[in-house]
Amino acid sequence: MLSKNSIKYINSLKIKKYRQLHNVFIAEGEKIVAELLSGTSQLIAIYATEAWIRENQPGLSGITAEVSVVTEEELEKISDLSTPNKVLALVHLPDQPELQQDDFSEMMLALDGIRDPGNMGTILRTADWFGIRNVACSIDCVDVYNTKVIQSTMGSFTRVNVVYIDLKSLIEIAGPNTPIYGALLNGPSLTDKKFQKAGILMIGNESKGISPELISLITDPIFIPSFTPSVSKSYHAESLNASIANAIICYEISKQLSENKF
Amino acid sequence: MLSKNSIKYINSLKIKKYRQLHNVFIAEGEKIVAELLSGTSQLIAIYATEAWIRENQPGLSGITAEVSVVTEEELEKISDLSTPNKVLALVHLPDQPELQQDDFSEMMLALDGIRDPGNMGTILRTADWFGIRNVACSIDCVDVYNTKVIQSTMGSFTRVNVVYIDLKSLIEIAGPNTPIYGALLNGPSLTDKKFQKAGILMIGNESKGISPELISLITDPIFIPSFTPSVSKSYHAESLNASIANAIICYEISKQLSENKF
Repeated sequence: MLSKNSIKYINSLKIKKYRQLHNVFIAEGEKIVAELLSGTSQLIAIYATEAWIRENQPGLSGITAEVSVVTEEELEKISDLSTPNKVLALVHLPDQPELQQDDFSEMMLALDGIRDPGNMGTILRTADWFGIRNVACSIDCVDVYNTKVIQSTMGSFTRVNVVYIDLKSLIEIAGPNTPIYGALLNGPSLTDKKFQKAGILMIGNESKGISPELISLITDPIFIPSFTPSVSKSYHAESLNASIANAIICYEISKQLSENKF
Repeated sequence: MLSKNSIKYINSLKIKKYRQLHNVFIAEGEKIVAELLSGTSQLIAIYATEAWIRENQPGLSGITAEVSVVTEEELEKISDLSTPNKVLALVHLPDQPELQQDDFSEMMLALDGIRDPGNMGTILRTADWFGIRNVACSIDCVDVYNTKVIQSTMGSFTRVNVVYIDLKSLIEIAGPNTPIYGALLNGPSLTDKKFQKAGILMIGNESKGISPELISLITDPIFIPSFTPSVSKSYHAESLNASIANAIICYEISKQLSENKF
């Protein structure tokens, strides 16, 4: 049974200010909570249907988080999902990780103003898939602990370091020998690009792209070709979604780096 | 000034049943409406702020759609976006296109139970970018005229044919010589695959993947490698988002087909 106060408290955590005030965020859905149960995140509370608790009994034994049985109707009152779900967890907000000098010896993402929670979550999930461990976000990016971001990462937020930082400072810290790859709507084709092992791949805002003061810092612009005849250029999509552009470039980078290895 | 009845009518169009009843759907946002103004879609009405109308006067002259000035507050009452916007259009629902025999002589997408509007819209936008003209959707896919799908296509819905069809029938119509490529979590690596010019690329549901009765019809399973050492497999994302998997495979197909051409 969920009290009115609990419902109010949990819903307040959908707002960044309250997440930071209470040091708590929401993780929702079966897959994500399963990942949390087997990981190192600090679970505070679990609200789940009786059926879910029965099925997950082995994973629940020995955890310190409070487990509450709720009905589906109660879950709907605290959920952020439109489709039915079975479990929602409250998790301790970890300290923001700091970038180490070592992190610059591999490929890193830099997100400039990614606002859409679904895009942010998908970018983190894709980074996780391709083994990219660090994602630097400009200060105006959506909060990684936004409920919808957490949802779209499908658990990857537990494995990828997300750091909020002024991207100009990031590039300074990286130093002048670090290539800054930027996904743009013109420039050399992705298929011709030879990637270095260490570098920063910059992805811009969903509608404005990469901001002008950062564009000038890009050493290696990248264009994802559409491969369609130029005559029909005006008849196809103007651009790709930010998380799609990121994924295609990450795929090409990972492919190249793995080929060079063998 | 928007009447209560207009607000009620427009909001009803967010539900498929009413879109089909009235033969009307909603297209929202500056880019999409700009695309519609320059395309062949049948615009019925435009609700826009005074500023938007002033800026777009040239494109508005000569159109038959009714143009109404609304305030931002009024727009919020009919909008499906959380961020402020300037224009919303009502558009005539076109007849569902039919697949022609010719369509099977090129690459086609087949979506099996894509439920998330953002994924559907992004898949259509990506298809459009890479020049894929036909997308077959299983009957349980989200409706392409869902307001959020239209939004995520960024206008691509005007250029890509979307057909709702039983995918088993689709494969029968395609005939036994058509390769059926399927994005799966195991199987031969995408990097080793030689694609044919004509074929069907099947993408499965966000959580369940491709349904069992269709998996058996796949002639060419495809796995997107993560390129990370197998020892760390259990430490990275279990899978990629459906629209991401689609994009990476579409990129590889388009790259190969363009290389074979020259």
